[in-house]
Amino acid sequence: MNNIDFFHGVVFSRIIDNSPNHIEKYGGNNSFYIINNKTSIYIKYSQKRISPWTFSFAKTHIEEINKVKNGFENIFIVLVCNDNGICCLNYQEFCTVISVESNDFPKWIKARRQKGEKYAVTGSDGKLTYKIGDSDFPQKIY
Amino acid sequence: MNNIDFFHGVVFSRIIDNSPNHIEKYGGNNSFYIINNKTSIYIKYSQKRISPWTFSFAKTHIEEINKVKNGFENIFIVLVCNDNGICCLNYQEFCTVISVESNDFPKWIKARRQKGEKYAVTGSDGKLTYKIGDSDFPQKIY
Repeated sequence: MNNIDFFHGVVFSRIIDNSPNHIEKYGGNNSFYIINNKTSIYIKYSQKRISPWTFSFAKTHIEEINKVKNGFENIFIVLVCNDNGICCLNYQEFCTVISVESNDFPKWIKARRQKGEKYAVTGSDGKLTYKIGDSDFPQKIY
Repeated sequence: MNNIDFFHGVVFSRIIDNSPNHIEKYGGNNSFYIINNKTSIYIKYSQKRISPWTFSFAKTHIEEINKVKNGFENIFIVLVCNDNGICCLNYQEFCTVISVESNDFPKWIKARRQKGEKYAVTGSDGKLTYKIGDSDFPQKIY
């Protein structure tokens, strides 16, 4: 079994252990899933052992995210920080740290966390003024 | 995040990547899940690096499996062999290798696999005369 099975899997575990859910893959892409027929999630993972965790976004990723976003009520960007935790961004937060309109690539998001604290999130085009908690996920997506 | 989140998660990944599914936890126990409101699965994992992988069953586990079995169409015992693969037994196969009626504890199941082959399955009370393929899961549970 591949790492992707484990890192996508840990997202499903967190979702399912919280409440019953209908989950399905979306499209041919390996990273999009649809929760309860209405919410889409895009999963990325980093296997770095310690903070900060960095996630890069190619032009095709941004295009896919925007395309999927238009088809569903919500889209969330789910960043799996190895076994440390999950940093989940809604689309507005995503657009705060990454400009989906500018053409400077590669774009990236960095999640930084000190022990016992939440994730400080910066990106190639901006930063969040507040922190994102590991425990915000999965409640945040409902 | 804990190992259990990753090892249960890899089971969910395999299920979801195969087809859309409704998945929920069952009861207070951490190891039972219900797929599409009709099939129950009981997940165990072994973190041993190489074959064989051994899974022990206490009296309470057997009692829980029998109790859950009575409530659903099917129950499957899903044995996660670290990152090697998944050995999924139906209830009849489970009862072939473990006598659910005898009172000798602890009971165990051992899955042994050579590279490129399927899992040979033995248990404290018997053995399967055929092998179980990693690729049988998840189709086997439908």
